[in-house]
This record gives sequence, C-alpha cells and structure tokens, in this order.
Amino acid sequence: MLNWESIFATRSSRMKASEIRELLKLLDRPDIISFAGGIPDPELFPQAEFAEAYAEIFGGPAVSAALQYSVSEGYRPLREWLAKQMTALGIPATVDNIFITSGSQQGLDYLGKLFLSPKDTALVTWPTYLGALQAFNAYEPNYDQLNPGGNRTPQAYIQAAADAGGRVKFAYLSADFANPTGETVDRAGRERVLDLAEELDIPVIEDAAYQSLRYDGEAIPPILALEIARIGDINNARTIYCGSFSKTLAPGLRVGWVCAAEPVIRKLVLMKQAADLHSSTINQMAICAVAERGFDEQVAKVHKVYKHRRNAMLAALEKYMPAGVTWTKPEGGMFVWVTLPKGTDGAELLAKSIQSAKVAFVPGRAFFADGSGENTLRLSFSCANDKMIDEGVRRLGDLIRGGMAEAA
Amino acid sequence: MLNWESIFATRSSRMKASEIRELLKLLDRPDIISFAGGIPDPELFPQAEFAEAYAEIFGGPAVSAALQYSVSEGYRPLREWLAKQMTALGIPATVDNIFITSGSQQGLDYLGKLFLSPKDTALVTWPTYLGALQAFNAYEPNYDQLNPGGNRTPQAYIQAAADAGGRVKFAYLSADFANPTGETVDRAGRERVLDLAEELDIPVIEDAAYQSLRYDGEAIPPILALEIARIGDINNARTIYCGSFSKTLAPGLRVGWVCAAEPVIRKLVLMKQAADLHSSTINQMAICAVAERGFDEQVAKVHKVYKHRRNAMLAALEKYMPAGVTWTKPEGGMFVWVTLPKGTDGAELLAKSIQSAKVAFVPGRAFFADGSGENTLRLSFSCANDKMIDEGVRRLGDLIRGGMAEAA
Repeated sequence: MLNWESIFATRSSRMKASEIRELLKLLDRPDIISFAGGIPDPELFPQAEFAEAYAEIFGGPAVSAALQYSVSEGYRPLREWLAKQMTALGIPATVDNIFITSGSQQGLDYLGKLFLSPKDTALVTWPTYLGALQAFNAYEPNYDQLNPGGNRTPQAYIQAAADAGGRVKFAYLSADFANPTGETVDRAGRERVLDLAEELDIPVIEDAAYQSLRYDGEAIPPILALEIARIGDINNARTIYCGSFSKTLAPGLRVGWVCAAEPVIRKLVLMKQAADLHSSTINQMAICAVAERGFDEQVAKVHKVYKHRRNAMLAALEKYMPAGVTWTKPEGGMFVWVTLPKGTDGAELLAKSIQSAKVAFVPGRAFFADGSGENTLRLSFSCANDKMIDEGVRRLGDLIRGGMAEAA
Repeated sequence: MLNWESIFATRSSRMKASEIRELLKLLDRPDIISFAGGIPDPELFPQAEFAEAYAEIFGGPAVSAALQYSVSEGYRPLREWLAKQMTALGIPATVDNIFITSGSQQGLDYLGKLFLSPKDTALVTWPTYLGALQAFNAYEPNYDQLNPGGNRTPQAYIQAAADAGGRVKFAYLSADFANPTGETVDRAGRERVLDLAEELDIPVIEDAAYQSLRYDGEAIPPILALEIARIGDINNARTIYCGSFSKTLAPGLRVGWVCAAEPVIRKLVLMKQAADLHSSTINQMAICAVAERGFDEQVAKVHKVYKHRRNAMLAALEKYMPAGVTWTKPEGGMFVWVTLPKGTDGAELLAKSIQSAKVAFVPGRAFFADGSGENTLRLSFSCANDKMIDEGVRRLGDLIRGGMAEAA
C-alpha cells in the first residue's frame, strides 16, 4: 500500500480537519440549542422565486445553454446585473470587471492561488474569517496582523515578511459585519488600510460576504469604492472585492463574484478555465433571474428577520451575562462576538456546555492566525428564534457565571 | 497603479491564454463547419428528466436542503448511487470512497494540488488531455512521457525527475477513448501502467471522462478495477478514478466524482472545504434523481447518436483523405485523431482552413507536453450531422491534398 503522506505535496500538511468543525458535526441534535452554525436561515430562501426561475429555464429557449458548458468568466447577464449593482454601491464597474465564482469561498481560494508563493506573507486581522485562513493555507503563506486601528509602520511589515522568507502579498479583511466578530471597520480605518496597501504596494482583498446585511446605522462605502474615489478608475484599483449571494439569496447554488481591475479578472478567468472550467450554468441563470426580479425585496425580508434576532440576542446577553463578559454590538451580519474574562478557555467551555447547558457556539481561537483568542466565543443568531435565544443565552450565562465562581 | 505581474505568485506565469482557444472562440459562425468543439450535443441532454427533477425538488420536502450549504464530500444519495455504479464496473466501493467534484476537471485540479510541489514530475501520455496539463500547470510540475506500450525503466524515470529537481508524483492517463486521440489502452497496457506505478511507488490518476461512451468492441476493465483484482481492496489501491456526468447527462450542472482509497478521499474533502466548501447542492440532487431513474437508457440514447456520427466520420475520412494521412478508429468517445505527413503544420492548416475551406478543428500540438505533434489534428464528431461530416471532411481532404501537392 502506498504511503500517501510521503507523496502528498508539502502544502497538504496544512490541510487539517478542524477539531471544532468535527465537534460541531455532532451537535445537530434536537436537545442542543445551537448558536454555532453561521449559516442562513433556510426559511428565508426565496424558494418560490427559484422554483419559478428553474421552471422558466426548462420551459424556455435557453434550456440547452443552461445544461451545456459555458464560459469561465460567467454568465453575461448576471455579470451585467452585478456591474450595475456594484456601480450603485459606488464602484463604477463594467462586465469586464466581474468574474463569477462558485461562492465567495472560491474567490478567496483563487486569490490565494494567484498571489501567494510559499513563505509569502498575508496580512489578516486578528481574528479573521476561518475559511480565509483555510483557503490561503493551501499556498503555504505566513500571516501577519492587519490592524486597521493600529500604527505599525510599512517598514515593520516589510521586514517581518522578509525575515519569514518572502514578501507581503496582500491585506485581507472583511469590513462589514465580519465573520466572526460582527464588527465594522469605520471609514477612517478603511482609508488607513488603503494607505498601508499603497505604501506596501499590495492589493487589498475586501471580503464583502455580509455587506448587504446592514440592519441599522449608516452604510460605509466599500473599500473599493473609497479607492476609486481616490484614483478615479476601477482598472487602476488595487482593491479586489469578493461578493456572495449565499447570505441574501441561497448558498446551495454556489454563486459568488469577484469585482476588480481587468488584469486581475483576466488572470482569474484563466485560472478557473484550468481549475473547474466554469461555475454551474443553470445556477448562474437562476440566480440572475431571481436577482433581477426582486433582490432588494429579498434583502429587505432577510433584514427584518435577522435584525429582530440580533436585537433579541443583544437583549439576552445584557440580561444574563455576568459582569466581566463583554460582546460586540453588530449593526448587521449574523454574529455577536463574546469576550470572557482572561483565563477562561472557550474550547473548554464548549465541552462543558455540551455536557450540561446544551448550548453550542464556536470557540474563538480558530479565527486567530496566531492561535490566541482562547477567551472568546462566536455566537450566531441567524437560525435561532426568540425562545431559543433567550433560553440559550440564559443557560450560557449561568455556565459562565459558574465557571467564574469556581475560578475565584 | 499596481504592477500586477510583479506581485502574482510564480505559478501564475504558467496560466496563459491558449492561442487555439482564443482562435476557436471566433469560430462560432454559421458559415464554418466545426469539428473543433469536443462538447456533447445539447440535443441529447435529458431535458425533460432534469425539468422533472428540479420541479420535484422544489415541490418536495428537500427544497430547503437543496438551497442550503451542504457537506464537502457531496450529497450522500448520489455518492451511494455512484458506489453501486463503481461496483458494477468491477470496483467494489463504498460511499466513503466517493467524493463529489464540480466536474471531473476539478478532480484533476485537486489531484494536482494534492500531489505536486514545484519541480515534481507528472507522467502523462504524449498527447494527453490539454485540460489536465492546464490544471497541473498551476502547481509548477515538470512532465515526462508515460508510454503504456513502452519499456523505459523505472530507474530512468526516477533519474529524470531527480535531474529536474523533484520526484515522480503520479502517472495520469485516460484509458478509454481519450481526448484527444479517441484511442483505448488495452488490458496489457493498463497492467503495464500499474506495474510501473508499483515500481515507482506512485499513484495512477485514471481519467474516465469518456468511459461510458463505448459504441463497440469489448469493454476493458478500468485500471482501478484491474488493480483491485490484484490487491483485493480499494482502500489499498493506488489508482484514483475521476468520473464525470458531463458526457452522459449534462456538463452545465458541473458534477463529477473521484473514486479512490479513503486516505485520498479524506484529504480531498479537506481541500474542498477550504477551496469552495462544496459543489452545488441542488445540482447534485438533480443529477442523482436523473441518474437513479434512467442512467442506462440515457447512455443508450447517446451511444446510438454518437456511434452513427463516428461511423460517418470514419467513412468520410476513408473517402476523402489523400494517401499519407492516417487516423485513429475509436471504439467510443467523441474524437478522431488525424496524423498528417511529417512537415505539415496543423496550426497553419487551421489558419488556411478558416480562410478557404471553412472547416474548424483543433491542431494537435497543444495536447503535447513537449510541444511536439505539429502534424496532428483532433476532429470531434459529437455535434456534427451526416451532411456536415461528409462536406466538412471533403473540404478538409481537398485542403490537405492541395497543401501536399504544393509541398511536393
């Protein structure tokens, strides 16, 4: 029998099963109240609209095209719709600035593949989206901390990257209602990220997966919009915007997009031609039909439900959490980020919680590229109703209070 | 403006637009008879069956799941169906040996990613599937020639790979009606590939994209079946089988699979989780429904049409090609491979053909990892009717005869 580990490429050693993910697999049990998921509520999917879209494809002249191979850059009418959507967000774009991906996760994978040689450095926030770290890990980078509020010098980043054997290749961040914290980078922070990227002469990867999910507060322009306001033309921009339909329409179709300068789009198209030819033709057509007919109405429907749940979770945290526990107050998205007193371990708390409180969440450490953050938790409110939220946060508060009393 | 070329990873230099592909984009014109495509005939897609499958999903209890995130390994009922299908082909497999990909192209990309570090060597046939070279190129390998009929020693391969700065990582081949030649590797050739792989202690990647398309002659067991016959258990096997629904059901849904030993499947699942989470849930369900209800009938329908076209093309070649031109006699698939007299250049012939004969085909050189094969052409019969085949081959024969007369 072949010794597989000995013949795999070096990159494969960084592809590991996440212990947390394995643990959470076991939690899909009716006796557990779960704030772990981070997935959209399937009740909110525009089922009827999708049913109609597929039925129309099968009843219409495009059915052969829907089932056939198609171009790697994506279905043109969907790219046209997205170019308009981007323009409305302050990002004047044409169809040549839009590339369709199989979910925004694929955008992150492709951008890692496009920029990262082994030992290069990717700048990411502490914490950051776990899926971005997993996507980038395949290309064997090092990580350094991007801190939109900090004042580390460009020289310090350059030196650290050189010491690690490569160079800084990009800054990655999610500026709106980020997974896992739910927090937003303010306008000044976005401008500072752009300044740093200019000084380091690197691209900015803007993960906009949750951008459409703002429930209150004033919208802040995307980083790409702020950059175009500085320089005038998307084709000169260094910011690469990754979008997703997974949180607004439905994730099961696997349709997302990248919006960027044409030289980047052209390279991504070649990469996709070699990697999976194209994203599902029929699904791109269905997404396009549903988006064209009622994207804003669908987003409004989603906002109403998630805003209510966000409010319920913040109210429950206020009601039940002991002093010494803090949490974010997100203006959108799906997550609240909880910080426990120093010395508390989120992973241990989860193990206990499953035994006694029967509440699931994601311990925060996995979101830190440096393995810190052990006293943090991610709670998702997207799939929980009022009763589950109140009861679940109450039990979690009791458990944390008990742990603090024990430690004292 | 950022100098993109200077910041892209080294691998990106091997992601280039294919001149041929660019040229062929221009050929979708009504006045051109095209044997270039290599895509399935959309008239043969089971449209009604797919329409029913999607309608049933939307009308049934699985609709939420169809639109939701799902597991990276793929939709379990489809994996179960495939395990039975593999078993019927002489490959006793369980659901744990099956991994769903977004088309078999993604299987090739993932296997390149799994095995190839820069400067490693991949063994491929001369010629081979262009898309495999493109997928592997992203991982910066060298290529060496796999020749199932040859007798180069394992030591020679090992030495050549070491001289190139790495080691031999796998042998890749399509044993049935290969793209581009239409040829089949006989049983003895398959056994020799297995012998070589054992001696080199490397995996064999068996690209079975066309395997279901046998129109006559006796079926030869897949390489993975022959290996299991030797060693008894798929979980000890070194052969990795890549399958596709693109040639039998429809490519636009992007559903293929890998069948292999569990250690390989487990690693591919982790890779997919990081790269695009999972293939489209709804499309996997639709493929499963259509396959369960009538895969064999659909394959029979496809056979009948393509067999007729294959016969028509071989008859036309016999009728119109001048002496000195030879071609393969495929027992299945979509392609006939034509060899012109030495000194004739397929790319030049295509340029002339577009001007005068108005017949499109793919010059063979792109399929050779060493850039040889300039006097070869790939003709596809999958989308051409009798009249187009007779007329197109007649014109092509005249053009070749004219060129030979000029050269003489």
